[in-house]
Amino acid sequence: MAEIHRASTTAPVNIAVIKYWGKRDPKLNLPTNSSLSVTLSQSDLRTHTTASCSPAYPSSDTLLLNGSSQDVTGARTQACFRELRALRKSIEDADSSAPKLSSYPLKIVSENNFPTAAGLASSAAGFAALVRAIANLYELPASPTELSRIARQGSGSACRSLFGGYVGWEQGAAADGSDSVAFQVAPASHWPDMRALILVASAAKKDVSSTSGMQTTVATSSLFASRAAETVPRRMKEMQNAVQDKDFEAFGKVTMMDSNSFHATCLDTYPPIFYLNDTSRAAIKVVEAINTAAGKIIAAYTFDAGPNAVIYYLEENEKKVAGLFKAALGEKDGWAGQRGDAVEANGDALEKAKAEAGVALETLKDGVSRIILTGVGEGPIKTEESLIDDKGEPVSGS
Amino acid sequence: MAEIHRASTTAPVNIAVIKYWGKRDPKLNLPTNSSLSVTLSQSDLRTHTTASCSPAYPSSDTLLLNGSSQDVTGARTQACFRELRALRKSIEDADSSAPKLSSYPLKIVSENNFPTAAGLASSAAGFAALVRAIANLYELPASPTELSRIARQGSGSACRSLFGGYVGWEQGAAADGSDSVAFQVAPASHWPDMRALILVASAAKKDVSSTSGMQTTVATSSLFASRAAETVPRRMKEMQNAVQDKDFEAFGKVTMMDSNSFHATCLDTYPPIFYLNDTSRAAIKVVEAINTAAGKIIAAYTFDAGPNAVIYYLEENEKKVAGLFKAALGEKDGWAGQRGDAVEANGDALEKAKAEAGVALETLKDGVSRIILTGVGEGPIKTEESLIDDKGEPVSGS
Repeated sequence: MAEIHRASTTAPVNIAVIKYWGKRDPKLNLPTNSSLSVTLSQSDLRTHTTASCSPAYPSSDTLLLNGSSQDVTGARTQACFRELRALRKSIEDADSSAPKLSSYPLKIVSENNFPTAAGLASSAAGFAALVRAIANLYELPASPTELSRIARQGSGSACRSLFGGYVGWEQGAAADGSDSVAFQVAPASHWPDMRALILVASAAKKDVSSTSGMQTTVATSSLFASRAAETVPRRMKEMQNAVQDKDFEAFGKVTMMDSNSFHATCLDTYPPIFYLNDTSRAAIKVVEAINTAAGKIIAAYTFDAGPNAVIYYLEENEKKVAGLFKAALGEKDGWAGQRGDAVEANGDALEKAKAEAGVALETLKDGVSRIILTGVGEGPIKTEESLIDDKGEPVSGS
Repeated sequence: MAEIHRASTTAPVNIAVIKYWGKRDPKLNLPTNSSLSVTLSQSDLRTHTTASCSPAYPSSDTLLLNGSSQDVTGARTQACFRELRALRKSIEDADSSAPKLSSYPLKIVSENNFPTAAGLASSAAGFAALVRAIANLYELPASPTELSRIARQGSGSACRSLFGGYVGWEQGAAADGSDSVAFQVAPASHWPDMRALILVASAAKKDVSSTSGMQTTVATSSLFASRAAETVPRRMKEMQNAVQDKDFEAFGKVTMMDSNSFHATCLDTYPPIFYLNDTSRAAIKVVEAINTAAGKIIAAYTFDAGPNAVIYYLEENEKKVAGLFKAALGEKDGWAGQRGDAVEANGDALEKAKAEAGVALETLKDGVSRIILTGVGEGPIKTEESLIDDKGEPVSGS
């Protein structure tokens, strides 16, 4: 039987603190503004992907995600395959001894360690893992920057999941997108005590997909242009400085303001797009109460294209932030495990917060289905654990 | 006993379709952008005010609203009294036979014909009635335009309630506010078939007052400047054209977009201001479903600084718009009476809307406490019905 070539990686989710919303080129996923995110720990949220190829495989490329066969004929997946094969081909052309992997069908198997139903943007981790796994399979010398350019074509925000820590995505100016790549602002080790508490809302699935939503915003919002042209460029600088200086107050304020700005342009879209619901508003109120009690910003909310709140805070304030939420939402799924067990439910803080945010706390209890507790983490990690066995058959990950 | 001088008026509520939000001069209530509203019928919503003065009254001015004594020492009420007295004084100075009304204490009695708890902006009707009643009492030759300049100092949007029909408020440029006045775009008779259905939300009272909210927006929203400088000036022209042309589709689209733009700048405020809740979002969804079913815009939502939806539509579409809401919300207070009785509950339209907006319709049932059905109406109307008797004592209106 012909040889089966295999390589595996895991890749992380990232949650932006300066949001990507709007494409200047929908085909190449070129954004109207730069963005910046925190890469989250793969202990809690990751995609595990094995890429393999073999002359013995059936002729078409395949992708299995969480046991379900996925369509790979879409332009975005095809763009990633095409770019990676071209890089491999140039190796093969330069070295005639190199196996002709670029000509073999691809078989890819992926698994997420988090519930798809949670409404977390899994496409970022998914495309980052796909591109990184194939690059490993092809033994490409490509840097994470180069791979980010490719992953961006699969899903815009995926480019930021090629790096760990604090990651920017430079919008770039070139028409071919060659300069629209991710870059590391700082590694996770620079500011390792950043934590993220995700309040997963028990909401209906979202009405409007990100892709169609953002293009409607670009086309109809009268406020969007000033966000892209003025607000975001200023905040990108402020945020990079905040990360460099490990200044949580600045980090938190810009994070909250930019989330609000993004959702404001959604509301200014015609017809309006609402991702925040009453549960989201309640999370905002509780974060405001926490910051009021602390006398400074120690917690910062942000919302992607959905109602889930992601609340950033520093480990030193865990009791004041996660502790309050544990006291309020301790019966929800997600607290079990090493991180959650370490959080002390802070009943005193909860009682005090009830004065300012009592209705909001009740709304949260009704509207949150589970929590995820995580923190800043590393970029893609190569693994020997393969989701495809040596006969080319999918196997389940641990 | 000394003579009691009295004069009475009623004045209307107005609901803006281009929103006023932001003051360039908080003391004079000078706005950062022009605005435009529809004056609503006084049969349904009005303030009735009697102004009186007498040398026999106790020395300080008084104001009784719905039976409760109000503080008149605030800068805004004082500004109205001062301006009106100055105009009267100039009459007295020119004609020595004119009674010296400007020197007498004022006693003012007001009543609203709508529940204060409904969360309707009653200050517009209140200050318009106060200024118009005192102008009548003083027999001032002042035009509604001149009185709008005075009422604006009491409450910005009150200036628009000095006129009936479709009313603009020109932001003006003068530092003293002399050119920041209301003007009639068209009288009610020009486009008399405009209706308004108000869905009063059973909500907690609003968190943030309009006055403090709008100044926080001006100070912190990065998107607000482009709304004031670019978006609103363009829409003011579009809206005036729509009214002149009786073009409901243009009127409705600009109305909805401007409401969304205003609430977007509230969300972009730091900390964010939320006036829309899940009930408001549900009203938007149902209006969208009505327009989808009609294949064009026949209903238009707008929201002031609160969760209540005001839905404009033309009388010819009453069955398709109000009829659907009557089928969905027929058990709520407010349908009784001539206007509501005339609306035929449209069960067929409701059933069809459930496919697209079923969840929203359920949310509305839970979140709406009452409805108010009204339409475009006239400006202040002089009345002989006095809320103060000939002895200077308050009497209850009919």
